[in-house]
Amino acid sequence: MDKDAFFWKIVHGELPPPRAAEVLSIKFTAIDSDAGTIEVEFFARPEFTNPAGNIQGGFLAAMLDDTMGPALAATLAAGQFAPTLNLNVSFERAAKVGPVLGKGRVLKKGKDVCYLAGELYQEGQRIASATATALIKAAAP
Amino acid sequence: MDKDAFFWKIVHGELPPPRAAEVLSIKFTAIDSDAGTIEVEFFARPEFTNPAGNIQGGFLAAMLDDTMGPALAATLAAGQFAPTLNLNVSFERAAKVGPVLGKGRVLKKGKDVCYLAGELYQEGQRIASATATALIKAAAP
Repeated sequence: MDKDAFFWKIVHGELPPPRAAEVLSIKFTAIDSDAGTIEVEFFARPEFTNPAGNIQGGFLAAMLDDTMGPALAATLAAGQFAPTLNLNVSFERAAKVGPVLGKGRVLKKGKDVCYLAGELYQEGQRIASATATALIKAAAP
Repeated sequence: MDKDAFFWKIVHGELPPPRAAEVLSIKFTAIDSDAGTIEVEFFARPEFTNPAGNIQGGFLAAMLDDTMGPALAATLAAGQFAPTLNLNVSFERAAKVGPVLGKGRVLKKGKDVCYLAGELYQEGQRIASATATALIKAAAP
């Protein structure tokens, strides 16, 4: 880990958390940048529900993006960032208002192209899974 | 179109809009249920930004889900709903705070399995595209 990377500055309170992460009530509960794994807690708010009263799939996609992105961000050097190019989500069970556990991992970290995977759980059951492709870039100075 | 279907009841103000749609500031600007196409306006809020100040990809995924879902919902009969099984999003350009135009269409409406496609635009440029698979089900009575 590079403690000057933006991810670790956020974790250590030296930079504010991104606003998108605040909307999702994100909390990092375990980060292992050597293994490329992360565990994250979210809260699925009543404002995220669809006409059936379940959490709209798109907000689960947002949580998965915010699980897999940090798994990779924790491994980046200062001055690097890694936008998501593609996100593929499978919705496995209806999700309810309440806490959501996210588990993310870096499947492969290439020189620039990276492959990521993540899952969401509620009450011990997997509700959604995803893979993503991200590209490491140099941040503008 | 079936004016007793939940989608049309929402459009006609007989049912409240889903809360997830309110968070995304959704407005339907064109609906053609015979063609299976829809145009939707969203507003990408400052709360949806990532550390780079762009809109977090997951919230674009949420908008795409809320573009493609209604394209199909507009064609359903009363008592039917169609959860998204899988959502595959490509992020083509950085998205900024501001209005977003969504265009969705039903690629194939089967007896139960449906294939959908959608794109998002900002200032005339495509920022993201997606495909989705949805399954038509009978709502619980």
